[in-house]
Amino acid sequence: MASSYGKNIRLQIFGQSHSPAIGCTVDGLPAGFRIDREELQKFLDRRAPGRTKYSTPRKEADQPEFLSGLVDDVTCGAPLTAVIRNTNTRSKDYDNIRDIPRPGHADYTAHVKYGGHNDVSGGGHFSGRLTAPLCIAGGICRQMLASRGITVNARILEIGGNREDPFGEIEKARAAGDSVGGIVECVISGVPVGIGDPMFDGVENRIAQIVFGIPAVKGIEFGAGFDVARMRGSENNDPFYMDESGSVKTRTNHAGGILGGISDGMDIVFRCAFKPTPSIPAVQASISLSEKKDAELAVRGRHDPCIVPRAVPVVEAAAALAVLDMMREPAMAVEE
Amino acid sequence: MASSYGKNIRLQIFGQSHSPAIGCTVDGLPAGFRIDREELQKFLDRRAPGRTKYSTPRKEADQPEFLSGLVDDVTCGAPLTAVIRNTNTRSKDYDNIRDIPRPGHADYTAHVKYGGHNDVSGGGHFSGRLTAPLCIAGGICRQMLASRGITVNARILEIGGNREDPFGEIEKARAAGDSVGGIVECVISGVPVGIGDPMFDGVENRIAQIVFGIPAVKGIEFGAGFDVARMRGSENNDPFYMDESGSVKTRTNHAGGILGGISDGMDIVFRCAFKPTPSIPAVQASISLSEKKDAELAVRGRHDPCIVPRAVPVVEAAAALAVLDMMREPAMAVEE
Amino acid sequence: MASSYGKNIRLQIFGQSHSPAIGCTVDGLPAGFRIDREELQKFLDRRAPGRTKYSTPRKEADQPEFLSGLVDDVTCGAPLTAVIRNTNTRSKDYDNIRDIPRPGHADYTAHVKYGGHNDVSGGGHFSGRLTAPLCIAGGICRQMLASRGITVNARILEIGGNREDPFGEIEKARAAGDSVGGIVECVISGVPVGIGDPMFDGVENRIAQIVFGIPAVKGIEFGAGFDVARMRGSENNDPFYMDESGSVKTRTNHAGGILGGISDGMDIVFRCAFKPTPSIPAVQASISLSEKKDAELAVRGRHDPCIVPRAVPVVEAAAALAVLDMMREPAMAVEE
Amino acid sequence: MASSYGKNIRLQIFGQSHSPAIGCTVDGLPAGFRIDREELQKFLDRRAPGRTKYSTPRKEADQPEFLSGLVDDVTCGAPLTAVIRNTNTRSKDYDNIRDIPRPGHADYTAHVKYGGHNDVSGGGHFSGRLTAPLCIAGGICRQMLASRGITVNARILEIGGNREDPFGEIEKARAAGDSVGGIVECVISGVPVGIGDPMFDGVENRIAQIVFGIPAVKGIEFGAGFDVARMRGSENNDPFYMDESGSVKTRTNHAGGILGGISDGMDIVFRCAFKPTPSIPAVQASISLSEKKDAELAVRGRHDPCIVPRAVPVVEAAAALAVLDMMREPAMAVEE
Repeated sequence: MASSYGKNIRLQIFGQSHSPAIGCTVDGLPAGFRIDREELQKFLDRRAPGRTKYSTPRKEADQPEFLSGLVDDVTCGAPLTAVIRNTNTRSKDYDNIRDIPRPGHADYTAHVKYGGHNDVSGGGHFSGRLTAPLCIAGGICRQMLASRGITVNARILEIGGNREDPFGEIEKARAAGDSVGGIVECVISGVPVGIGDPMFDGVENRIAQIVFGIPAVKGIEFGAGFDVARMRGSENNDPFYMDESGSVKTRTNHAGGILGGISDGMDIVFRCAFKPTPSIPAVQASISLSEKKDAELAVRGRHDPCIVPRAVPVVEAAAALAVLDMMREPAMAVEE
Repeated sequence: MASSYGKNIRLQIFGQSHSPAIGCTVDGLPAGFRIDREELQKFLDRRAPGRTKYSTPRKEADQPEFLSGLVDDVTCGAPLTAVIRNTNTRSKDYDNIRDIPRPGHADYTAHVKYGGHNDVSGGGHFSGRLTAPLCIAGGICRQMLASRGITVNARILEIGGNREDPFGEIEKARAAGDSVGGIVECVISGVPVGIGDPMFDGVENRIAQIVFGIPAVKGIEFGAGFDVARMRGSENNDPFYMDESGSVKTRTNHAGGILGGISDGMDIVFRCAFKPTPSIPAVQASISLSEKKDAELAVRGRHDPCIVPRAVPVVEAAAALAVLDMMREPAMAVEE
Repeated sequence: MASSYGKNIRLQIFGQSHSPAIGCTVDGLPAGFRIDREELQKFLDRRAPGRTKYSTPRKEADQPEFLSGLVDDVTCGAPLTAVIRNTNTRSKDYDNIRDIPRPGHADYTAHVKYGGHNDVSGGGHFSGRLTAPLCIAGGICRQMLASRGITVNARILEIGGNREDPFGEIEKARAAGDSVGGIVECVISGVPVGIGDPMFDGVENRIAQIVFGIPAVKGIEFGAGFDVARMRGSENNDPFYMDESGSVKTRTNHAGGILGGISDGMDIVFRCAFKPTPSIPAVQASISLSEKKDAELAVRGRHDPCIVPRAVPVVEAAAALAVLDMMREPAMAVEE
Repeated sequence: MASSYGKNIRLQIFGQSHSPAIGCTVDGLPAGFRIDREELQKFLDRRAPGRTKYSTPRKEADQPEFLSGLVDDVTCGAPLTAVIRNTNTRSKDYDNIRDIPRPGHADYTAHVKYGGHNDVSGGGHFSGRLTAPLCIAGGICRQMLASRGITVNARILEIGGNREDPFGEIEKARAAGDSVGGIVECVISGVPVGIGDPMFDGVENRIAQIVFGIPAVKGIEFGAGFDVARMRGSENNDPFYMDESGSVKTRTNHAGGILGGISDGMDIVFRCAFKPTPSIPAVQASISLSEKKDAELAVRGRHDPCIVPRAVPVVEAAAALAVLDMMREPAMAVEE
């Protein structure tokens, strides 16, 4: 199991790429919050394919229908469910993968795990399409956080190692009939001091657990990240100081806003690495599951040479859900 | 809350650096397994300070006492609890941190979160000492995995950016009155195909959630890790092939043994980045919590200039627990 | 939150009586199981109103649409979601309860809990209608259990204290413009020895947790139930014996098939008590939430004088889900 | 697994009757609360055997040692662990049960579940002794609730069906060389309106889940309990009214303080049924597990003819833990 996440805000995602619909249920959203439907749709549009010249021409109509949890766009405290119908498919493109797994995809592992009964069409439950319901849930959480002065913003840090001209790398890869990966950086501002718990439920643990649920993520780092491994303590430590308004701050933020798994009031900063899209036009070496011998595979159909631009709002959605889940933990000090 | 982890093998850690004891409870270990106590002690010894010339002279007697869950060293199916008494302390060293938080530590964040009631002595519940019970629990899991042909081995990849002479970097840092960080790499071999679940309970999600519970970890990456962000799909994809014994393998392993969150039978490989020990002898800038103004801090006491060598078994312990927890998930295909 | 249940088979229910749809997601069903859609519909029909002369004439078309998790009626291992559209409503009947809570219903408590933002129409998320998705999920689990030789059957034990002519009591209540309660008994046969866990995850704990999620349940008892309080040990103990086939059995079954929270192989037997339907035509004393003073209420609309006949399949559904969830726990003994 | 309970206040119990110690960890207690150690000990003394002439002469020194989570008796926010050493045992009494399971006990079911590796001595992890750590955890929660004006009090309602002279029944049973059961009633006062969640995490669900973790409980009912099955709606409904202080109350309390799983501000009332102690001196029919044939068993040792008097504080402890866990759920309405 486990397409679910969260302790106080509990998210359940469902759907396969070619099932009648995909969607999510979010249980635990407090009642009385008015969701800005227009803003939510703009947020979802940032993710959808077919909207920029860099992405797949498959035009999915990502308009969620809310089946429950809202009354006139205001949360009513009951579980909120949103669905998106799958209408524009081309399943003939996936015929040859039932027997010959695509390198870099979950075809082989899901085949074994589910005894050959997994829905392979379009990648099934492993398709990047399933980031749409994550964006619905996270987009709502992001609005709730904004109402409390907490912002969640991500951006492309680099694509193919290129920070100055990331989109140039996508074109190069497309021209080469190949794909390319990149890094997304996310900054969460305005988080109060003290959220997150020690050990296994800290800010890093909870954000990492949900972000690795985004397809193609192979690494995550917080603050100075892997660079801390090359720093001295005298460099890496962030000295405290009191600013003019009487708030505690740090001069630097190598900690990425997190000390001991708990937020320190500075921006929470993390970066995640996306591998290049596995679906490339070139012929690839694979195996035939039925004949148990080597075989070749040519992936047909329409695929993004780079999913990083589309992943940016997905990272925001994931982070927002994790942060709101943590914000709703009970206070760990008795009131004086 | 949340010094707990796991769904089938449930770990609860407790203790503060200077409380009467630290320990753990592990619930869900199957009955009938004989724990090799001698091997477990050797595993714990790899972690303990005072045993190599690179670490703190504080000699903790890390001999666990098993209070429950074992009968003549054989698991009996009931929750297993082990404790380690805290006997060798020097609490005068920590007097000045009650008011002046140490940069890089959880002093400030815990002070706010717990309303000033947190146990600060020795770092309280945030001390690196709490990795000892994690090693007890994980060491037992590691033995159980070994009995099934699954090995979990970690090593120092680099310290201070130096792969050839990592220990040379520790000496340099000590001589400079400073500290240094590093990277630990872990390889899990022999894992069958199909463990891990989609989305939020995949292999990466679960390992990341527990590994970020190790103090000082600021990043984690699987397989080619952050390098995937600079690769083309044609390079990063791992082609499948059938080996002579009829097993499915991949020619390369950029995926680190994981596709779609599920194991593919190849080695699971990950690396985690450790920041340099925050406790350094130098005077540091901080604040006085009571006077709400800037103040200076000199950390006294005995501290490791680098915790990476001691962290290696801790990483193994964490990974072992995550993997055994996943191994014990129910099968996701009906038996034919 | 928490319209969710289960550890291995995870159920999430959503919907309000008058939201666009109600439904459920079940995550963790193993792949490769063919659901008998016709049998499932018959199971759901046992619950639906308007089919017997004893229940509400509101004719809901309880035909679930499966949005995910099935391919040609075979489970594919991904989360399974089913929805039922709400089409036949009469919301004018509920106008007066927004200000004047109905005795015996959740109107008042939900009003306070959700700050007045709860969806009151038709009882919102608290409506008995939400037992339909529980029946879909439980009906599927019941089929899976049947395929393993485990049966789950419930029946009306009594209504209004009458065991010989329970339906006669419903007519009496209806004629009196009142409502009546009753007791449902459930028997689960064929459960192997050893399922359930000690203390808080035993068979009683898990069945009780889900059964109290059925509206109107106010008590549950296992085996001899509350009668054990009046028995001597010499009467209540169930002596063991070996039957001709070499199976261990008990001569009596006061334990209801459960010892120490774990199944002993005998039938698991429990009974739950349903209170009479709170919605009765008579004028009742209540309060005005806005005016903060006493007020009267007359519940309009169409209501069952007794929900017990309709609750029988719901009890089976709940029990089936709990049992399948327990059946899928990992084995607690190492294989020899 | 699963000797654990709770979402916000997480309890883990460990220990077997004859392991070195029994105990519990409670994670999630807010920091800054001073535990009254003397009052806690009195609470534990209510449970301990050897203190009244009605219970076992085995004199266990139930003095908990706190290993973590407290600093000078004040909670520090870290997990709290308490242990009780097992010092006074008579294990020769249990020799014959390794092969011949005692009727009414978990010997047989645990033997099968744990592959014969379970700790049988003194009943192992299933012993009533394990209610001591539940009382430590619950006793602390009870004090926290009291500080908020919430009281949790239980009492013996009847023993052997006798309400006027319950202790007379214990003597009769002892004289007959038998045992007897009873019913405990618990009242929780001062709970604010709105705690508990719909469906599977309501007040009844959560209290039932923990109370069935007390050995010997075979039934639980709330408010009018099983009597509701014989009532009419006009009788069972509790009419609302506004009292002089402007609080909403109900004229009767058949609901036991719970509507739709959520507290309504009236006393929460429940009763649980305890079966008679299975260990009786009489020879009983059983089987030999090794010889797979019928055999007789005579239970030796010292056993209570009735555990109900000792169970009263255990019921309070369980209820207190469940209520505090619910009290610490996040608010389900946005602040206006």
